[in-house]
Amino acid sequence: MLIHTIAEVREQVKEWRKQGLSIGLVPTMGALHDGHKSLIEKSVEKCDKTVVSVFVNPIQFCPGEDLDKYPRTLEADEKLCNDAGVDIVFAPSPKEMYGEGHILSNDFLTYVIPPYFYTDKLCGKSRVGHFDGVCTVVNKLFNIVQPDFAFFGEKDRQQLIILKKMVKDLNIPIQIIPCPIVREESGLALSSRNKYLSENDKKEALVLSKILFNIKACYEKGIKDCKLLHETAFSYLNEHHSLEYLEFRDADDLEEKKIADKNTIVFIALKIGDVRLIDNIALENV
Amino acid sequence: MLIHTIAEVREQVKEWRKQGLSIGLVPTMGALHDGHKSLIEKSVEKCDKTVVSVFVNPIQFCPGEDLDKYPRTLEADEKLCNDAGVDIVFAPSPKEMYGEGHILSNDFLTYVIPPYFYTDKLCGKSRVGHFDGVCTVVNKLFNIVQPDFAFFGEKDRQQLIILKKMVKDLNIPIQIIPCPIVREESGLALSSRNKYLSENDKKEALVLSKILFNIKACYEKGIKDCKLLHETAFSYLNEHHSLEYLEFRDADDLEEKKIADKNTIVFIALKIGDVRLIDNIALENV
Repeated sequence: MLIHTIAEVREQVKEWRKQGLSIGLVPTMGALHDGHKSLIEKSVEKCDKTVVSVFVNPIQFCPGEDLDKYPRTLEADEKLCNDAGVDIVFAPSPKEMYGEGHILSNDFLTYVIPPYFYTDKLCGKSRVGHFDGVCTVVNKLFNIVQPDFAFFGEKDRQQLIILKKMVKDLNIPIQIIPCPIVREESGLALSSRNKYLSENDKKEALVLSKILFNIKACYEKGIKDCKLLHETAFSYLNEHHSLEYLEFRDADDLEEKKIADKNTIVFIALKIGDVRLIDNIALENV
Repeated sequence: MLIHTIAEVREQVKEWRKQGLSIGLVPTMGALHDGHKSLIEKSVEKCDKTVVSVFVNPIQFCPGEDLDKYPRTLEADEKLCNDAGVDIVFAPSPKEMYGEGHILSNDFLTYVIPPYFYTDKLCGKSRVGHFDGVCTVVNKLFNIVQPDFAFFGEKDRQQLIILKKMVKDLNIPIQIIPCPIVREESGLALSSRNKYLSENDKKEALVLSKILFNIKACYEKGIKDCKLLHETAFSYLNEHHSLEYLEFRDADDLEEKKIADKNTIVFIALKIGDVRLIDNIALENV
C-alpha cells in the first residue's frame, strides 16, 4: 500500500498496535537495490508488519551535493516492496515532512544533533551537517511510524553507529537491527550511487573492496599495526582514484585504532571521477 | 509509587498500554508547589494514569547557575503526588538518565536542539544552551514514558512555545497541554526559586506581576503601541530591581511585536539581588 501522508500512516499503525502486532521500519531514500531488499526481507521475516519509507531527505544533503540528481524510482521501488511483502510504502513529499514554508535551517527547525566526536570524522568531515540531517529525519520517521525494530545497512556504518548512539542517548524505545553489506560478485558494495558509474568506472570502483579484503587478509595473517595495514592499500591505487580516507576505528564509538583488534572497522571513501563511494569492513565479526 | 529506574517505568507503562489506558506526564524538577499541583491535577483529571517526573536536569543549567543549590525536596514531592492521585513518581539519578561516565557535552551526547530563532531571545539570551538541555531531557522523558499528554506551565512560556515547536518539528505523537500560571494572592507567580527570596525580597518581587497587570490594563484601555506600553513599566522599578528584559512577542513563534494584538505575550525577567525571576502575561486569552 503506497501512502503519502503522515496521518494515514499513523492511522494504519494505530490499528496494528491495537491488534498487538510488531512493526518493522526500513528507512530508505528509494532507488532500491538488493542491499535494501535484504533489509526489507529481514524486517518482513522478523516483524508482523513492515513499513518502508522512501524519502530523499533534503536536510542531509550538503550544498553542492547530488540532491537534485539523486535517483528517484518510486514505481520500481513500490514493486520491489510489494513483491517482498511490505505492508506500507511511505513516500511523503518534502512539504509533508517539513511543513508549508519548509525553511530547513536550524534557525527555524528543531534538529537532533549527534555528538561531535562521532560526526567530526570519516564522512562527517567532508559532509558537514549530513548526520544532523540523518538523525533528525530518522527521529521524525521513528515518531511517525513508532516501530519496534528499525533496519539499517552496515554499508553506511558510521550512520549506523551514530543512530545506535542516538537511540541510546535519547532512550528511544526502538531496537536498531544492523544488516550486512550486500556485494556484487565482483566485491563492489551495492549503492544507489553506483548508478552514476560508467562501465569503466565500475571496474575502477572495485579498488574499495579489494583494499578492504586485502587488509582483512593481512590482519588474519597476524599484522595488527594499523600503519602497516594502511600501507598495503597504496599498491591498489592509481590516477583514477582520489582517496578521501582509509581509517581504522572502533565499531562502537569510532575511536581511532593504532593496533587493530576484534572491534576494529576499516572505513574507506574515495572518488572515481565525480562519484564518491564508501565501503567498510569489520576485521572480525562484530 | 516512587520509581528510580527507566526499566521499571517502562514495564509499568507497557502494562497500562496493554490495557488501553491513557497516560499523562508532568515533567518537573521537583520542589513542587501549587503551580505544579495544578498541572498534576489536570493530568489526573484528564488521563487514566499520571506519571510525575522529578529530575533536576544538569544539562539545562548553565555554568554559574544554581544547579547545586536548586531545592531538592523529594519526600514532600512524593507526598504531594500521592495526595493528588499520581500513579508513578519517577525520580531517576543523573547516572540513570545520562549513563555511567555521563559526559554531558555535545562532544559525547546526542542533543535535541530547538531552532535558534526561538532560543536566541528572552531567557535564551542569558541562559545559553538552556533550552537545548530542556528539549533533550524532555525528549528523553517522552521516549521513556510515552505518554499521550504532557503538561507544562505557562509560567515558563518560552519553554512551552519551544516544546510545542519541538513536538511539531519532530512529529512527536504527544499532545502538549499548557496550564495557566498560578499566583499568590499578592500576584506573585509561583516558582520553586521563590524559596531563595527573603520576606523583603518577596515584596520587591511583586513588581513583575504589577508591571504585567498594568500593561494589560493599558492594552485593554486601547494602548496598542508596544513602545508606549513598555514605558509604563518604569514607574514601578527601583534600585532593588535589575531588569533583564521586558518584551512583547508572538505567542506562537516569538516574533517581536511593535503593535500589541490578541496573540501578544508580554515577557519579563528581572533580578532581585541574586535571584532571577520571570513572569509573563497574555494580553488576551490565547
